[in-house]
Amino acid sequence: MSKEPNTVFIGRKPVMNYVLAVITLFGSGETKQITLKARGQAITTAVDVAEITRRRFMESLKVEKVIIDTEEISMEEGGTRAVSTMEIILSKSS
Amino acid sequence: MSKEPNTVFIGRKPVMNYVLAVITLFGSGETKQITLKARGQAITTAVDVAEITRRRFMESLKVEKVIIDTEEISMEEGGTRAVSTMEIILSKSS
Repeated sequence: MSKEPNTVFIGRKPVMNYVLAVITLFGSGETKQITLKARGQAITTAVDVAEITRRRFMESLKVEKVIIDTEEISMEEGGTRAVSTMEIILSKSS
Repeated sequence: MSKEPNTVFIGRKPVMNYVLAVITLFGSGETKQITLKARGQAITTAVDVAEITRRRFMESLKVEKVIIDTEEISMEEGGTRAVSTMEIILSKSS
């Protein structure tokens, strides 16, 4: 996954790392919209990040859209495997 | 979670069990809309169920809406814990 502005890629780090990333990015004042991207097991973490940020830190946060899709991943041993992906688009209203 | 018509609750069973439940429910012809409900780690499974059903079995399936939320769960040892939840609303167009 390439580097994209205003996108937070969710992986295996503790959930609060990503919450902090979202708060910092919104706090910089340079954007009113952030996309969380995750695949596989990290999808649950992405939902936790959105929910914890909204409930505990930024009550004005709105979940604009949740998009689910499938990505074909090339395996080292050849062939491809389908992995579910998710994008959560968050926006700050004020 | 109480019994609701046209709702498939996603838990810890193998993902294909739920895919089969969705296909069977749509196949009965009694509904054109099914809601998948999941919480915690099962959220990833719910996304897999939607994606596998759509890609492999029912190309006419559409993801109408994905809703994320938080549920307070009472703990046996007292107090509550917040758990992320997800609803995926699927519809059959034809």
